[in-house]
Amino acid sequence: MRWRKISDAVVRRLPLYLRVLDEVVKSGDTPMISSQELGARAGVGSALVRKDLAWFGEFGKQGVGYEVEYLRSELKQILNMEREHNIILVGAGSLGIALARYTIRRYHMDDSFSLKLVGLFDHDPDKIGKAYEGISVFAMAEMESFVRKHNVQMAMITVPADAAQDIAMQLVNCGVRAILNLAPVKLTLPEHVQLLNADLTLELQRLAYYLAPGQTWE
Amino acid sequence: MRWRKISDAVVRRLPLYLRVLDEVVKSGDTPMISSQELGARAGVGSALVRKDLAWFGEFGKQGVGYEVEYLRSELKQILNMEREHNIILVGAGSLGIALARYTIRRYHMDDSFSLKLVGLFDHDPDKIGKAYEGISVFAMAEMESFVRKHNVQMAMITVPADAAQDIAMQLVNCGVRAILNLAPVKLTLPEHVQLLNADLTLELQRLAYYLAPGQTWE
Repeated sequence: MRWRKISDAVVRRLPLYLRVLDEVVKSGDTPMISSQELGARAGVGSALVRKDLAWFGEFGKQGVGYEVEYLRSELKQILNMEREHNIILVGAGSLGIALARYTIRRYHMDDSFSLKLVGLFDHDPDKIGKAYEGISVFAMAEMESFVRKHNVQMAMITVPADAAQDIAMQLVNCGVRAILNLAPVKLTLPEHVQLLNADLTLELQRLAYYLAPGQTWE
Repeated sequence: MRWRKISDAVVRRLPLYLRVLDEVVKSGDTPMISSQELGARAGVGSALVRKDLAWFGEFGKQGVGYEVEYLRSELKQILNMEREHNIILVGAGSLGIALARYTIRRYHMDDSFSLKLVGLFDHDPDKIGKAYEGISVFAMAEMESFVRKHNVQMAMITVPADAAQDIAMQLVNCGVRAILNLAPVKLTLPEHVQLLNADLTLELQRLAYYLAPGQTWE
């Protein structure tokens, strides 16, 4: 079963809900959670919580709420977190290494995060052969065969702006279907590829908009 | 002059337009740009470009387009990039240091990025006193006086999840008005504070949604 045409606005709230449920399970709180509480802890209105979840099934009982463990396991399945996915990172600069560490830590610490970093790639001979948290840096020339061999469908890109488009297309050509791009450049990729830009330059500039002296936003 | 009630969806596209104009200026291309070209290069429809910019003034001439240098200088002003802003980063772990390097590089390389990192903060005695790209790591105890002294209105938070809320409130209490949060936790802050969460765990989980076998999204 798959759900088509569900808007990305809905999809992007699902991990928030999952995180709240993870916390509830961890703290050993009540076995049920109301849409009010789930919403409050996720920063979303309760009506929207109910609407979002209704896209995927009838998880709640009116007046009672959601069974925490059940909803959590359903959300993990919807987000494809019930099985491991191999992921690689291209560009082992300081940002790349930091992200690699972060991703590995999440994989080991969060029960609901099943993306497993299996390789780093860089063109710098000084970096190739090194390892970070047990994950090796490979040469760019090995990337395509590695992706195919390990069935990698997801990648993070932290290379300089002028290299990102070529690398992304190489990845797509050998089967990658989801890319988190941290290079400060807009990528143009085939429609079937899911692209997410985490461009901190743009985010910081956007924040600065709100810094005008005497600025009030109501 | 300030523009009220302009939606964040508009604001988040302005840095994209600015980046395109930066590129056009750099490449020494034509002095004019049409909304079609600006849109195509920013990944936005031309009608939306015209609508977004019209919120802030009449920058274009029908049938001719926008004067590149003029629109660029106006956008820089709107985004408060025409003058420097001091910014700090709290949490000098590997992600923090990488972000610090990234921000400093942008400041030196991008003419339209005027956020100047002036201090790093951490509680680890081994880190305090070190410097990265010329920026020192200070003790947490010095943070409040530093923020006041240097008129810091913007901060990046890269501390562990359980410390982020307290630190954010400390920052807000001494005058910070815009926060980029990279800690994997939802912060609750006063309404006048502009908060932007760059939570990579959530982003990666959201991407994974689209990885289902045989998934098509039309």
